[in-house]
Amino acid sequence: MENIISTIETIVERQKVVFIGSVDSEGFPNMKAMLMARKREGLRTFYLTTNTSSMRVSQFQKNNKSCLYFCDCDNFKGIMLKGTVEVLTDARHKEMIWQDGDTEYYKEGVTDPDYCVLKFTAISGRFYSYYGSENFIIE
Amino acid sequence: MENIISTIETIVERQKVVFIGSVDSEGFPNMKAMLMARKREGLRTFYLTTNTSSMRVSQFQKNNKSCLYFCDCDNFKGIMLKGTVEVLTDARHKEMIWQDGDTEYYKEGVTDPDYCVLKFTAISGRFYSYYGSENFIIE
Repeated sequence: MENIISTIETIVERQKVVFIGSVDSEGFPNMKAMLMARKREGLRTFYLTTNTSSMRVSQFQKNNKSCLYFCDCDNFKGIMLKGTVEVLTDARHKEMIWQDGDTEYYKEGVTDPDYCVLKFTAISGRFYSYYGSENFIIE
Repeated sequence: MENIISTIETIVERQKVVFIGSVDSEGFPNMKAMLMARKREGLRTFYLTTNTSSMRVSQFQKNNKSCLYFCDCDNFKGIMLKGTVEVLTDARHKEMIWQDGDTEYYKEGVTDPDYCVLKFTAISGRFYSYYGSENFIIE
């Protein structure tokens, strides 16, 4: 198990993009590529930024079930984390992951009401490689 | 609209990988990278191959709601198609998209019971680019 986790951590660390899944009001899975999480705690917790007004946020406010997917597509490997998303709009979390240059996206700065944080918490993981897949436990 | 569709077709055409979404028995969105569809009819219908015994097939047999996502990640563009999946195991469809070399995955050849076809039919589309997103109609 330790070897798999180490492989997974390496793949996750290299990603510039993460795919996030949600379920819409009609029960369809939705997904979108987002910039990689700016902060993470192991494979358990990931913090991403997005627009408060976005379709994704409105979906998560109604249904917090989600997944993240990291693709090492060149090597036919992928990691899916299943979990839930909290939409955070408090100053502490917004300041925690704010970066210089974010005013390009959020004109009013760190207090911009259209800037929010998605906190993803994983409950289980699945590792896909060339021919097969296996579940793994999130520490 | 015509310009968007042309841009979307070009992006879809270039992909080697497509991400497919499903909803599991606990209501969580799931996703996985797959080899690009071998056959498609416009942006409406896509045919993919997979293992009949796979987790994805078992999910689609219980819940056919799905989405496909195509990522032009280098240019911050993405396309999500929302639709449904049929799991096809009949000879006609299996033969239609079988390719030489597939015995690497399906030892028994085109009649291998573990080889099946996923037929995705889109009902709506959403195009994501740098700063925003918009819905588009599937012809």
